[in-house]
Amino acid sequence: MKPHTETRLRVRYAETDQMGVVYYANYLVWMEVGRVELCKSCGFNYRDMESEDGIFLAVVESHCEYRHPARYDDEIVVRTWIEEASTRRVTFQYEMRLAENDRRLATGYTRHLYVSRAMRPTHLPQKYHALFGLE
Amino acid sequence: MKPHTETRLRVRYAETDQMGVVYYANYLVWMEVGRVELCKSCGFNYRDMESEDGIFLAVVESHCEYRHPARYDDEIVVRTWIEEASTRRVTFQYEMRLAENDRRLATGYTRHLYVSRAMRPTHLPQKYHALFGLE
Amino acid sequence: MKPHTETRLRVRYAETDQMGVVYYANYLVWMEVGRVELCKSCGFNYRDMESEDGIFLAVVESHCEYRHPARYDDEIVVRTWIEEASTRRVTFQYEMRLAENDRRLATGYTRHLYVSRAMRPTHLPQKYHALFGLE
Amino acid sequence: MKPHTETRLRVRYAETDQMGVVYYANYLVWMEVGRVELCKSCGFNYRDMESEDGIFLAVVESHCEYRHPARYDDEIVVRTWIEEASTRRVTFQYEMRLAENDRRLATGYTRHLYVSRAMRPTHLPQKYHALFGLE
Repeated sequence: MKPHTETRLRVRYAETDQMGVVYYANYLVWMEVGRVELCKSCGFNYRDMESEDGIFLAVVESHCEYRHPARYDDEIVVRTWIEEASTRRVTFQYEMRLAENDRRLATGYTRHLYVSRAMRPTHLPQKYHALFGLE
Repeated sequence: MKPHTETRLRVRYAETDQMGVVYYANYLVWMEVGRVELCKSCGFNYRDMESEDGIFLAVVESHCEYRHPARYDDEIVVRTWIEEASTRRVTFQYEMRLAENDRRLATGYTRHLYVSRAMRPTHLPQKYHALFGLE
Repeated sequence: MKPHTETRLRVRYAETDQMGVVYYANYLVWMEVGRVELCKSCGFNYRDMESEDGIFLAVVESHCEYRHPARYDDEIVVRTWIEEASTRRVTFQYEMRLAENDRRLATGYTRHLYVSRAMRPTHLPQKYHALFGLE
Repeated sequence: MKPHTETRLRVRYAETDQMGVVYYANYLVWMEVGRVELCKSCGFNYRDMESEDGIFLAVVESHCEYRHPARYDDEIVVRTWIEEASTRRVTFQYEMRLAENDRRLATGYTRHLYVSRAMRPTHLPQKYHALFGLE
Protein backbone atom coordinates (compact mmCIF):
# COMPACT_ATOMS: atom_id res chain seq x y z
CA MET A 1 0.00 0.00 0.00
CA LYS A 2 1.19 3.52 -0.75
CA PRO A 3 2.21 5.87 2.06
CA HIS A 4 -0.89 7.54 3.42
CA THR A 5 -2.06 9.83 6.18
CA GLU A 6 -4.92 9.41 8.55
CA THR A 7 -7.06 12.28 9.72
CA ARG A 8 -9.77 12.01 12.31
CA LEU A 9 -12.90 14.09 12.42
CA ARG A 10 -16.18 14.04 14.27
CA VAL A 11 -19.44 14.23 12.30
CA ARG A 12 -21.14 17.57 12.86
CA TYR A 13 -24.88 18.05 13.24
CA ALA A 14 -24.68 20.46 10.30
CA GLU A 15 -23.44 17.60 8.14
CA THR A 16 -26.51 15.42 8.62
CA ASP A 17 -29.71 15.64 6.61
CA GLN A 18 -33.29 14.65 7.32
CA MET A 19 -32.58 11.03 6.38
CA GLY A 20 -30.62 11.00 9.67
CA VAL A 21 -27.27 10.37 7.99
CA VAL A 22 -24.45 12.49 6.59
CA TYR A 23 -25.45 14.37 3.42
CA TYR A 24 -23.53 12.95 0.48
CA ALA A 25 -21.73 16.11 -0.62
CA ASN A 26 -20.00 16.36 2.76
CA TYR A 27 -17.78 13.36 2.00
CA LEU A 28 -16.09 15.60 -0.56
CA VAL A 29 -15.41 18.14 2.19
CA TRP A 30 -13.82 15.39 4.26
CA MET A 31 -11.68 14.40 1.27
CA GLU A 32 -10.41 17.99 1.21
CA VAL A 33 -9.57 17.75 4.91
CA GLY A 34 -7.62 14.56 4.21
CA ARG A 35 -5.82 16.14 1.26
CA VAL A 36 -4.62 19.07 3.34
CA GLU A 37 -3.38 16.73 6.02
CA LEU A 38 -1.54 14.62 3.47
CA CYS A 39 0.22 17.74 2.17
CA LYS A 40 1.30 18.59 5.72
CA SER A 41 2.62 15.12 6.33
CA CYS A 42 4.53 15.38 3.03
CA GLY A 43 6.28 18.40 4.43
CA PHE A 44 4.48 21.40 3.03
CA ASN A 45 1.45 23.49 3.77
CA TYR A 46 -1.11 23.83 1.00
CA ARG A 47 -1.90 27.32 2.31
CA ASP A 48 1.67 28.42 1.56
CA MET A 49 1.66 26.77 -1.85
CA GLU A 50 -1.31 28.98 -2.71
CA SER A 51 -0.15 32.20 -1.10
CA GLU A 52 3.60 32.00 -1.74
CA ASP A 53 3.87 30.15 -5.02
CA GLY A 54 0.49 30.96 -6.52
CA ILE A 55 -0.08 27.27 -7.27
CA PHE A 56 -3.61 25.96 -6.79
CA LEU A 57 -4.97 22.44 -7.04
CA ALA A 58 -8.00 22.83 -9.31
CA VAL A 59 -10.24 19.80 -9.12
CA VAL A 60 -11.19 18.28 -12.47
CA GLU A 61 -12.94 15.14 -11.29
CA SER A 62 -14.42 13.70 -8.12
CA HIS A 63 -15.77 10.27 -7.43
CA CYS A 64 -17.23 8.71 -4.32
CA GLU A 65 -18.75 5.33 -3.50
CA TYR A 66 -20.95 5.28 -0.44
CA ARG A 67 -20.97 1.91 1.31
CA HIS A 68 -22.35 2.58 4.74
CA PRO A 69 -23.87 5.79 6.10
CA ALA A 70 -22.01 7.94 8.61
CA ARG A 71 -24.09 9.40 11.42
CA TYR A 72 -23.99 12.38 13.72
CA ASP A 73 -21.15 12.31 16.28
CA ASP A 74 -19.44 9.33 14.64
CA GLU A 75 -15.67 9.56 14.63
CA ILE A 76 -14.39 9.18 11.08
CA VAL A 77 -10.93 8.23 9.92
CA VAL A 78 -10.00 9.62 6.51
CA ARG A 79 -7.11 7.78 4.90
CA THR A 80 -5.55 9.69 1.99
CA TRP A 81 -2.79 8.90 -0.45
CA ILE A 82 -1.43 10.00 -3.80
CA GLU A 83 -2.49 7.50 -6.41
CA GLU A 84 -0.65 9.08 -9.30
CA ALA A 85 1.24 12.31 -9.89
CA SER A 86 2.98 14.10 -12.72
CA THR A 87 4.23 17.67 -13.10
CA ARG A 88 0.79 18.61 -14.54
CA ARG A 89 -1.73 16.67 -12.49
CA VAL A 90 -2.25 14.62 -9.37
CA THR A 91 -4.82 12.04 -8.22
CA PHE A 92 -5.62 11.56 -4.57
CA GLN A 93 -7.41 8.50 -3.27
CA TYR A 94 -9.46 8.31 -0.09
CA GLU A 95 -10.93 5.78 2.25
CA MET A 96 -13.28 6.82 5.03
CA ARG A 97 -13.82 4.47 7.94
CA LEU A 98 -15.65 4.47 11.22
CA ALA A 99 -13.01 4.86 13.96
CA GLU A 100 -14.96 2.69 16.38
CA ASN A 101 -14.90 -0.54 14.40
CA ASP A 102 -12.92 0.23 11.25
CA ARG A 103 -16.03 -0.25 9.11
CA ARG A 104 -15.50 1.15 5.64
CA LEU A 105 -17.97 3.94 4.94
CA ALA A 106 -16.86 5.34 1.63
CA THR A 107 -14.05 5.37 -0.91
CA GLY A 108 -13.24 7.79 -3.67
CA TYR A 109 -10.75 9.84 -5.55
CA THR A 110 -10.21 13.37 -6.82
CA ARG A 111 -8.13 14.45 -9.80
CA HIS A 112 -6.51 17.86 -9.91
CA LEU A 113 -4.58 20.07 -12.26
CA TYR A 114 -1.98 22.51 -10.97
CA VAL A 115 -3.18 25.95 -11.99
CA SER A 116 -2.03 29.53 -11.55
CA ARG A 117 -4.04 32.16 -9.71
CA ALA A 118 -5.60 33.02 -13.08
CA MET A 119 -6.76 29.38 -13.31
CA ARG A 120 -4.39 28.48 -16.16
CA PRO A 121 -2.77 25.02 -16.14
CA THR A 122 0.81 25.17 -14.98
CA HIS A 123 3.68 22.89 -13.97
CA LEU A 124 4.38 21.87 -10.42
CA PRO A 125 7.47 23.84 -9.28
CA GLN A 126 10.64 21.78 -8.90
CA LYS A 127 10.78 22.25 -5.15
CA TYR A 128 7.57 20.25 -4.69
CA HIS A 129 8.59 17.32 -6.90
CA ALA A 130 10.02 15.11 -4.20
CA LEU A 131 7.05 15.80 -1.96
CA PHE A 132 4.67 14.50 -4.62
CA GLY A 133 6.89 11.50 -5.25
CA LEU A 134 8.30 12.81 -8.53
CA GLU A 135 12.01 12.46 -9.17
CA MET B 1 -31.53 12.46 -25.97
CA LYS B 2 -33.61 11.25 -23.06
CA PRO B 3 -36.35 13.42 -21.59
CA HIS B 4 -34.80 15.80 -19.12
CA THR B 5 -35.66 18.77 -16.94
CA GLU B 6 -33.88 22.05 -16.61
CA THR B 7 -33.56 23.88 -13.33
CA ARG B 8 -32.06 27.30 -12.94
CA LEU B 9 -30.20 28.55 -9.91
CA ARG B 10 -28.04 31.51 -9.04
CA VAL B 11 -24.61 30.91 -7.46
CA ARG B 12 -24.62 32.00 -3.81
CA TYR B 13 -21.74 33.74 -2.09
CA ALA B 14 -21.75 30.90 0.42
CA GLU B 15 -20.98 28.48 -2.39
CA THR B 16 -17.69 30.13 -3.38
CA ASP B 17 -14.33 29.47 -1.78
CA GLN B 18 -11.14 31.51 -1.51
CA MET B 19 -10.07 30.43 -4.99
CA GLY B 20 -12.90 32.73 -6.13
CA VAL B 21 -14.94 29.94 -7.70
CA VAL B 22 -17.63 27.53 -6.56
CA TYR B 23 -16.38 24.95 -4.08
CA TYR B 24 -16.42 21.53 -5.71
CA ALA B 25 -18.76 19.77 -3.29
CA ASN B 26 -21.54 22.24 -4.10
CA TYR B 27 -22.04 20.76 -7.56
CA LEU B 28 -23.42 17.71 -5.77
CA VAL B 29 -25.91 19.95 -4.00
CA TRP B 30 -26.99 21.31 -7.38
CA MET B 31 -27.39 17.76 -8.68
CA GLU B 32 -29.79 17.16 -5.81
CA VAL B 33 -31.74 20.28 -6.78
CA GLY B 34 -31.96 18.96 -10.34
CA ARG B 35 -33.04 15.51 -9.14
CA VAL B 36 -35.90 16.92 -7.10
CA GLU B 37 -37.03 18.99 -10.04
CA LEU B 38 -36.93 15.97 -12.33
CA CYS B 39 -39.12 14.05 -9.91
CA LYS B 40 -41.64 16.90 -9.94
CA SER B 41 -41.68 17.05 -13.70
CA CYS B 42 -42.23 13.25 -13.73
CA GLY B 43 -45.36 13.84 -11.71
CA PHE B 44 -44.46 13.18 -8.13
CA ASN B 45 -42.92 14.96 -5.22
CA TYR B 46 -39.87 13.35 -3.66
CA ARG B 47 -40.95 14.78 -0.32
CA ASP B 48 -44.14 12.73 -0.48
CA MET B 49 -42.31 9.62 -1.59
CA GLU B 50 -40.30 9.88 1.63
CA SER B 51 -43.08 10.88 3.99
CA GLU B 52 -46.00 8.88 2.56
CA ASP B 53 -44.36 5.78 1.16
CA GLY B 54 -41.25 5.65 3.31
CA ILE B 55 -39.11 5.23 0.18
CA PHE B 56 -35.77 7.03 0.15
CA LEU B 57 -33.21 7.37 -2.59
CA ALA B 58 -29.95 6.41 -0.86
CA VAL B 59 -26.96 7.49 -2.90
CA VAL B 60 -24.40 4.77 -3.53
CA GLU B 61 -22.13 6.58 -5.97
CA SER B 62 -21.46 10.11 -7.16
CA HIS B 63 -19.26 11.31 -9.96
CA CYS B 64 -18.52 14.77 -11.27
CA GLU B 65 -16.25 16.17 -13.96
CA TYR B 66 -15.44 19.84 -13.62
CA ARG B 67 -14.77 21.53 -16.95
CA HIS B 68 -15.04 25.23 -16.26
CA PRO B 69 -15.45 26.99 -12.92
CA ALA B 70 -18.73 28.58 -11.91
CA ARG B 71 -18.52 31.94 -10.18
CA TYR B 72 -20.53 33.97 -7.73
CA ASP B 73 -23.83 35.28 -9.12
CA ASP B 74 -23.60 33.16 -12.30
CA GLU B 75 -26.90 31.72 -13.40
CA ILE B 76 -26.59 27.96 -13.77
CA VAL B 77 -28.80 25.59 -15.74
CA VAL B 78 -28.89 22.07 -14.35
CA ARG B 79 -30.10 19.50 -16.88
CA THR B 80 -31.12 16.20 -15.30
CA TRP B 81 -32.32 12.92 -16.71
CA ILE B 82 -32.71 9.28 -15.75
CA GLU B 83 -29.93 7.30 -17.35
CA GLU B 84 -31.08 3.93 -16.20
CA ALA B 85 -33.68 2.58 -13.81
CA SER B 86 -34.85 -0.72 -12.42
CA THR B 87 -37.12 -1.61 -9.53
CA ARG B 88 -34.04 -1.67 -7.25
CA ARG B 89 -31.87 1.21 -8.39
CA VAL B 90 -31.75 4.34 -10.49
CA THR B 91 -29.00 6.42 -12.10
CA PHE B 92 -29.43 10.13 -12.73
CA GLN B 93 -27.21 12.07 -15.10
CA TYR B 94 -26.52 15.79 -14.94
CA GLU B 95 -25.14 18.56 -17.05
CA MET B 96 -24.51 22.00 -15.60
CA ARG B 97 -24.20 24.94 -17.96
CA LEU B 98 -23.79 28.68 -17.70
CA ALA B 99 -27.17 30.21 -18.64
CA GLU B 100 -25.53 33.23 -20.25
CA ASN B 101 -23.67 31.41 -23.02
CA ASP B 102 -24.54 27.74 -22.61
CA ARG B 103 -20.94 26.94 -21.69
CA ARG B 104 -20.70 23.49 -20.14
CA LEU B 105 -19.39 23.72 -16.58
CA ALA B 106 -19.70 20.21 -15.27
CA THR B 107 -21.20 16.81 -15.93
CA GLY B 108 -21.83 13.91 -13.62
CA TYR B 109 -24.05 11.16 -12.37
CA THR B 110 -25.38 9.73 -9.15
CA ARG B 111 -26.52 6.17 -8.52
CA HIS B 112 -29.13 5.39 -5.92
CA LEU B 113 -30.80 2.43 -4.26
CA TYR B 114 -34.39 2.62 -3.10
CA VAL B 115 -34.29 2.06 0.65
CA SER B 116 -36.78 1.96 3.50
CA ARG B 117 -36.70 4.36 6.41
CA ALA B 118 -34.49 1.83 8.20
CA MET B 119 -32.06 2.14 5.27
CA ARG B 120 -32.75 -1.39 3.96
CA PRO B 121 -32.80 -1.90 0.17
CA THR B 122 -36.33 -2.21 -1.13
CA HIS B 123 -38.31 -2.31 -4.37
CA LEU B 124 -39.78 0.75 -6.02
CA PRO B 125 -43.56 0.62 -5.44
CA GLN B 126 -45.65 -0.20 -8.52
CA LYS B 127 -47.25 3.23 -8.60
CA TYR B 128 -43.91 4.89 -9.36
CA HIS B 129 -42.90 2.51 -12.17
CA ALA B 130 -44.25 4.52 -15.07
CA LEU B 131 -42.75 7.70 -13.66
CA PHE B 132 -39.30 6.13 -13.66
CA GLY B 133 -39.83 4.78 -17.16
CA LEU B 134 -40.36 1.18 -16.02
CA GLU B 135 -43.13 -0.86 -17.62
CA MET C 1 -42.68 49.99 5.98
CA LYS C 2 -39.40 50.61 4.20
CA PRO C 3 -38.94 49.60 0.58
CA HIS C 4 -38.01 45.96 0.45
CA THR C 5 -37.43 43.13 -1.98
CA GLU C 6 -38.80 39.66 -1.93
CA THR C 7 -36.79 36.66 -3.02
CA ARG C 8 -38.17 33.18 -3.29
CA LEU C 9 -36.21 30.02 -2.73
CA ARG C 10 -36.96 26.35 -2.30
CA VAL C 11 -35.51 24.49 0.71
CA ARG C 12 -32.83 22.04 -0.42
CA TYR C 13 -32.32 18.60 1.04
CA ALA C 14 -28.76 19.67 1.85
CA GLU C 15 -30.15 22.39 4.10
CA THR C 16 -32.01 20.02 6.42
CA ASP C 17 -30.51 18.24 9.39
CA GLN C 18 -31.43 15.08 11.25
CA MET C 19 -34.06 16.92 13.28
CA GLY C 20 -35.97 16.98 9.97
CA VAL C 21 -35.90 20.78 9.69
CA VAL C 22 -33.59 23.38 8.19
CA TYR C 23 -30.26 23.66 10.01
CA TYR C 24 -30.08 27.02 11.77
CA ALA C 25 -26.97 28.39 10.06
CA ASN C 26 -28.67 28.17 6.67
CA TYR C 27 -30.98 31.06 7.48
CA LEU C 28 -27.88 33.25 7.31
CA VAL C 29 -27.22 31.94 3.81
CA TRP C 30 -30.77 32.90 2.85
CA MET C 31 -30.22 36.37 4.29
CA GLU C 32 -27.25 36.69 1.95
CA VAL C 33 -29.45 35.66 -0.97
CA GLY C 34 -31.94 38.34 0.03
CA ARG C 35 -29.20 40.96 0.40
CA VAL C 36 -27.89 40.33 -3.10
CA GLU C 37 -31.39 40.58 -4.50
CA LEU C 38 -31.98 43.85 -2.67
CA CYS C 39 -28.80 45.29 -4.18
CA LYS C 40 -30.01 44.31 -7.63
CA SER C 41 -33.40 45.90 -7.09
CA CYS C 42 -31.59 49.04 -5.89
CA GLY C 43 -29.91 49.18 -9.26
CA PHE C 44 -26.48 47.67 -8.78
CA ASN C 45 -24.87 44.29 -8.72
CA TYR C 46 -22.92 43.40 -5.59
CA ARG C 47 -20.58 41.34 -7.77
CA ASP C 48 -19.55 44.48 -9.65
CA MET C 49 -19.17 46.49 -6.47
CA GLU C 50 -16.60 43.90 -5.38
CA SER C 51 -14.82 43.40 -8.67
CA GLU C 52 -14.93 46.93 -10.09
CA ASP C 53 -14.81 49.16 -7.04
CA GLY C 54 -13.07 46.83 -4.61
CA ILE C 55 -15.75 47.52 -2.01
CA PHE C 56 -16.84 44.59 0.14
CA LEU C 57 -19.58 44.31 2.73
CA ALA C 58 -17.82 42.76 5.72
CA VAL C 59 -20.31 41.42 8.24
CA VAL C 60 -19.76 42.57 11.80
CA GLU C 61 -22.90 41.22 13.42
CA SER C 62 -25.66 38.73 12.66
CA HIS C 63 -28.83 38.01 14.54
CA CYS C 64 -31.66 35.61 13.88
CA GLU C 65 -34.83 34.66 15.72
CA TYR C 66 -36.31 31.32 14.76
CA ARG C 67 -40.08 31.21 15.15
CA HIS C 68 -41.19 28.23 13.16
CA PRO C 69 -39.06 25.57 11.46
CA ALA C 70 -38.71 25.47 7.66
CA ARG C 71 -38.79 22.03 6.08
CA TYR C 72 -37.47 20.35 2.98
CA ASP C 73 -39.09 21.52 -0.26
CA ASP C 74 -40.89 24.44 1.44
CA GLU C 75 -40.98 27.58 -0.65
CA ILE C 76 -39.55 30.47 1.35
CA VAL C 77 -40.03 34.18 0.82
CA VAL C 78 -37.14 36.30 2.06
CA ARG C 79 -38.08 39.94 2.54
CA THR C 80 -35.07 42.24 2.86
CA TRP C 81 -34.70 45.95 3.50
CA ILE C 82 -32.09 48.47 4.61
CA GLU C 83 -32.77 49.37 8.20
CA GLU C 84 -30.07 51.98 8.50
CA ALA C 85 -27.17 53.17 6.37
CA SER C 86 -24.30 55.63 6.56
CA THR C 87 -21.19 56.08 4.46
CA ARG C 88 -19.36 53.67 6.82
CA ARG C 89 -21.87 50.95 7.64
CA VAL C 90 -25.20 49.44 6.72
CA THR C 91 -27.78 47.29 8.50
CA PHE C 92 -30.05 44.94 6.59
CA GLN C 93 -33.18 43.47 8.09
CA TYR C 94 -34.85 40.22 7.04
CA GLU C 95 -38.09 38.41 7.37
CA MET C 96 -38.48 34.85 6.16
CA ARG C 97 -41.96 33.50 5.52
CA LEU C 98 -43.54 30.34 4.18
CA ALA C 99 -44.85 31.18 0.70
CA GLU C 100 -47.79 28.83 1.08
CA ASN C 101 -49.51 30.55 4.00
CA ASP C 102 -47.36 33.58 4.81
CA ARG C 103 -46.40 32.09 8.15
CA ARG C 104 -43.43 33.92 9.64
CA LEU C 105 -40.50 31.54 10.07
CA ALA C 106 -37.66 33.78 11.13
CA THR C 107 -36.55 37.38 11.44
CA GLY C 108 -33.11 38.87 11.78
CA TYR C 109 -30.59 41.45 10.81
CA THR C 110 -26.98 41.74 9.70
CA ARG C 111 -24.65 44.71 10.19
CA HIS C 112 -21.83 45.40 7.77
CA LEU C 113 -18.87 47.70 7.32
CA TYR C 114 -17.71 48.73 3.87
CA VAL C 115 -14.15 47.46 3.56
CA SER C 116 -11.44 47.44 0.92
CA ARG C 117 -10.00 44.28 -0.59
CA ALA C 118 -7.39 44.38 2.18
CA MET C 119 -10.26 44.31 4.69
CA ARG C 120 -9.72 47.90 5.89
CA PRO C 121 -12.80 50.00 6.71
CA THR C 122 -13.58 52.45 3.96
CA HIS C 123 -16.27 54.90 2.83
CA LEU C 124 -19.06 54.00 0.46
CA PRO C 125 -18.22 55.64 -2.89
CA GLN C 126 -20.41 58.59 -3.83
CA LYS C 127 -22.00 56.79 -6.76
CA TYR C 128 -23.66 54.28 -4.43
CA HIS C 129 -25.07 56.85 -2.00
CA ALA C 130 -28.49 57.23 -3.58
CA LEU C 131 -28.83 53.49 -3.92
CA PHE C 132 -28.34 53.05 -0.19
CA GLY C 133 -30.74 55.89 0.54
CA LEU C 134 -28.01 58.39 1.49
CA GLU C 135 -28.28 61.94 0.19
CA MET D 1 -15.99 33.11 34.76
CA LYS D 2 -18.39 30.22 34.39
CA PRO D 3 -17.08 26.71 33.75
CA HIS D 4 -16.47 26.31 30.05
CA THR D 5 -15.05 23.89 27.53
CA GLU D 6 -12.57 24.51 24.79
CA THR D 7 -12.76 22.81 21.42
CA ARG D 8 -10.18 23.13 18.73
CA LEU D 9 -10.86 22.98 15.02
CA ARG D 10 -8.99 23.75 11.84
CA VAL D 11 -10.61 26.02 9.23
CA ARG D 12 -11.58 24.01 6.15
CA TYR D 13 -11.23 25.25 2.59
CA ALA D 14 -14.96 24.64 2.19
CA GLU D 15 -15.60 27.19 4.94
CA THR D 16 -13.94 30.08 3.12
CA ASP D 17 -15.61 32.31 0.55
CA GLN D 18 -14.30 34.44 -2.28
CA MET D 19 -13.45 37.26 0.11
CA GLY D 20 -10.68 34.92 1.28
CA VAL D 21 -12.06 34.56 4.79
CA VAL D 22 -14.49 32.25 6.58
CA TYR D 23 -18.09 32.69 5.42
CA TYR D 24 -20.14 34.17 8.23
CA ALA D 25 -22.70 31.38 8.60
CA ASN D 26 -19.97 28.89 9.45
CA TYR D 27 -19.37 30.46 12.84
CA LEU D 28 -22.78 29.09 13.78
CA VAL D 29 -21.60 25.63 12.77
CA TRP D 30 -18.59 26.05 15.05
CA MET D 31 -20.89 27.12 17.89
CA GLU D 32 -22.72 23.82 17.42
CA VAL D 33 -19.40 21.96 17.61
CA GLY D 34 -18.64 23.79 20.87
CA ARG D 35 -22.10 23.05 22.26
CA VAL D 36 -21.75 19.32 21.65
CA GLU D 37 -18.35 19.33 23.31
CA LEU D 38 -19.72 21.19 26.31
CA CYS D 39 -22.45 18.57 26.69
CA LYS D 40 -19.81 15.84 26.66
CA SER D 41 -17.71 17.58 29.25
CA CYS D 42 -20.86 17.96 31.38
CA GLY D 43 -21.17 14.20 31.34
CA PHE D 44 -23.68 13.38 28.66
CA ASN D 45 -23.83 12.88 24.94
CA TYR D 46 -26.26 15.08 23.04
CA ARG D 47 -26.71 12.22 20.57
CA ASP D 48 -28.10 10.03 23.35
CA MET D 49 -30.31 12.80 24.67
CA GLU D 50 -31.93 12.90 21.23
CA SER D 51 -32.10 9.19 20.54
CA GLU D 52 -32.81 7.83 24.02
CA ASP D 53 -34.83 10.56 25.65
CA GLY D 54 -36.33 12.20 22.59
CA ILE D 55 -35.21 15.61 23.86
CA PHE D 56 -33.94 18.07 21.27
CA LEU D 57 -32.42 21.50 21.67
CA ALA D 58 -34.40 23.63 19.22
CA VAL D 59 -32.66 26.92 18.57
CA VAL D 60 -34.84 30.00 18.98
CA GLU D 61 -32.22 32.72 18.64
CA SER D 62 -28.65 33.10 17.41
CA HIS D 63 -26.34 36.05 17.65
CA CYS D 64 -22.77 36.54 16.51
CA GLU D 65 -20.35 39.47 16.52
CA TYR D 66 -17.49 39.19 14.08
CA ARG D 67 -14.36 41.00 15.25
CA HIS D 68 -11.57 39.63 13.14
CA PRO D 69 -11.79 37.28 10.15
CA ALA D 70 -10.70 33.66 10.39
CA ARG D 71 -8.79 32.28 7.43
CA TYR D 72 -8.18 28.93 5.81
CA ASP D 73 -6.08 26.53 7.90
CA ASP D 74 -6.23 28.72 11.01
CA GLU D 75 -6.61 26.77 14.20
CA ILE D 76 -9.63 28.02 16.12
CA VAL D 77 -10.42 27.63 19.79
CA VAL D 78 -14.14 27.65 20.56
CA ARG D 79 -14.88 28.40 24.20
CA THR D 80 -18.43 27.50 25.24
CA TRP D 81 -20.38 27.88 28.44
CA ILE D 82 -23.94 27.87 29.72
CA GLU D 83 -25.00 31.44 30.35
CA GLU D 84 -28.39 30.64 31.77
CA ALA D 85 -30.56 27.57 32.11
CA SER D 86 -33.99 26.61 33.34
CA THR D 87 -36.08 23.49 32.92
CA ARG D 88 -37.58 25.00 29.74
CA ARG D 89 -34.70 26.78 28.02
CA VAL D 90 -30.97 27.21 27.92
CA THR D 91 -28.57 29.89 26.61
CA PHE D 92 -25.08 29.02 25.48
CA GLN D 93 -22.38 31.62 25.04
CA TYR D 94 -19.35 31.32 22.77
CA GLU D 95 -16.00 32.89 22.21
CA MET D 96 -13.90 31.99 19.19
CA ARG D 97 -10.19 32.75 19.26
CA LEU D 98 -7.18 32.15 17.08
CA ALA D 99 -5.13 29.40 18.76
CA GLU D 100 -1.86 30.90 17.59
CA ASN D 101 -2.09 34.22 19.42
CA ASP D 102 -5.35 34.10 21.37
CA ARG D 103 -6.81 36.88 19.21
CA ARG D 104 -10.56 37.09 19.66
CA LEU D 105 -12.32 36.43 16.36
CA ALA D 106 -15.97 36.30 17.30
CA THR D 107 -18.39 36.10 20.19
CA GLY D 108 -22.00 35.09 20.30
CA TYR D 109 -24.82 33.19 21.92
CA THR D 110 -27.60 30.80 21.04
CA ARG D 111 -30.87 30.32 22.91
CA HIS D 112 -32.69 27.00 22.83
CA LEU D 113 -35.92 25.42 23.96
CA TYR D 114 -36.09 21.78 24.94
CA VAL D 115 -38.54 20.16 22.55
CA SER D 116 -39.91 16.70 21.89
CA ARG D 117 -39.39 14.83 18.63
CA ALA D 118 -42.67 16.41 17.46
CA MET D 119 -41.08 19.82 18.10
CA ARG D 120 -43.32 20.64 21.09
CA PRO D 121 -41.76 22.52 24.03
CA THR D 122 -41.05 20.22 26.92
CA HIS D 123 -39.28 20.14 30.29
CA LEU D 124 -35.71 19.01 30.72
CA PRO D 125 -35.84 15.56 32.37
CA GLN D 126 -34.73 15.44 36.00
CA LYS D 127 -31.65 13.38 35.25
CA TYR D 128 -30.13 16.21 33.24
CA HIS D 129 -30.75 18.94 35.83
CA ALA D 130 -27.41 18.76 37.59
CA LEU D 131 -25.58 18.66 34.27
CA PHE D 132 -27.18 21.93 33.23
CA GLY D 133 -26.46 23.46 36.62
CA LEU D 134 -30.05 23.25 37.85
CA GLU D 135 -30.69 22.07 41.40
